[in-house]
Amino acid sequence: MELIETLEWRYATKKYSSRKVADDILERIITAINLSASSVGIQPYKILVIENQDVRKQLSAYSLNPQITESSHLLIFAAFDSINQATIENYVALIAREREIPVESLSVFRKKALNRLLLNTDEENLIWATKQAYIALGTALIAAAAEKVDTTPMEGFQAEHFDELLGLKEKGLKSVALMAVGYRDEERDTNAHLKKVRWPMEDFVETIK
Amino acid sequence: MELIETLEWRYATKKYSSRKVADDILERIITAINLSASSVGIQPYKILVIENQDVRKQLSAYSLNPQITESSHLLIFAAFDSINQATIENYVALIAREREIPVESLSVFRKKALNRLLLNTDEENLIWATKQAYIALGTALIAAAAEKVDTTPMEGFQAEHFDELLGLKEKGLKSVALMAVGYRDEERDTNAHLKKVRWPMEDFVETIK
Repeated sequence: MELIETLEWRYATKKYSSRKVADDILERIITAINLSASSVGIQPYKILVIENQDVRKQLSAYSLNPQITESSHLLIFAAFDSINQATIENYVALIAREREIPVESLSVFRKKALNRLLLNTDEENLIWATKQAYIALGTALIAAAAEKVDTTPMEGFQAEHFDELLGLKEKGLKSVALMAVGYRDEERDTNAHLKKVRWPMEDFVETIK
Repeated sequence: MELIETLEWRYATKKYSSRKVADDILERIITAINLSASSVGIQPYKILVIENQDVRKQLSAYSLNPQITESSHLLIFAAFDSINQATIENYVALIAREREIPVESLSVFRKKALNRLLLNTDEENLIWATKQAYIALGTALIAAAAEKVDTTPMEGFQAEHFDELLGLKEKGLKSVALMAVGYRDEERDTNAHLKKVRWPMEDFVETIK
């Protein structure tokens, strides 16, 4: 499977070259992210694509990862900080429009979604939304690698400062994961040559025949 | 990008045919999952592959998804329910073995991992481990689709009963997500023909140039 080679090729890039990722490649990566699966299909997150060096410099004060500024672009996965009735009604209306069916025909689905999500606290729904964003992060890492674009998934950052700098709170969002994209600087990046380490299959998988 | 076609092809399968997924295909899907990225690289989860119909029947009492029994195989993503010093020491020892370097040369990494994880509560680390498992779920959905294998990602199940039936607690694991795999029954599955609905790009992405 070609995908396995793609996954073997990928690694958490430490040092980026100055080469920029072209807009059309970036667009295909975003399209792939947008096609990711999510619970209820509601995709409770947005993607910020940050090229602006000033903004990235400000953000870099709240992360120890130099990739924030040294990569070509920084992607921020920002989860919905709450799920309210309007979120679900918007989504149901979108389905009706896209499939050209009356909203009423989605009443069972609508009720299920409301029951599934509105009974939770905002904190529970944020965790749930974050998990959906991580499915998308999984897609994003593969989509970039399929284009021979290097990436660094990153968690170690002060999300509240990112949110403030980017005005995410006003938009009902919280930054939950980062992904730097760009091209590796193979000479300077010692990680580029390290053997990938994974739990051996006998520890990783259990089969019940 | 071929990946976009693969993602377009994928959908949450409702009705499976009786056709089984071959062992070699399943193995490639698992290999892809094993190659997924994770924070610290520690991959704090395992995969259970359940073919046994009796076991799946017992599990199906604790989920509303008929795909549990009707698919070819059921994959369970089971996260580490805690991260202790031994988990990290095992992982550091594995890296040293695989890269043929002395454990001592990993002392900075080891210390960082200990600081990163041992200060958290078990509950915080379980959420963290679950998020890593969702990256892998993202990989798994793509890996299956790349093999033209259908899937259903599922969250709605009573995890504590799954854990009890499968003896996961004794293994330090908690079931956090499910994925049915198999082949769609295109005639019986009304979902197979629905237009995929995603947030429009202008709502989904924000670019800061």
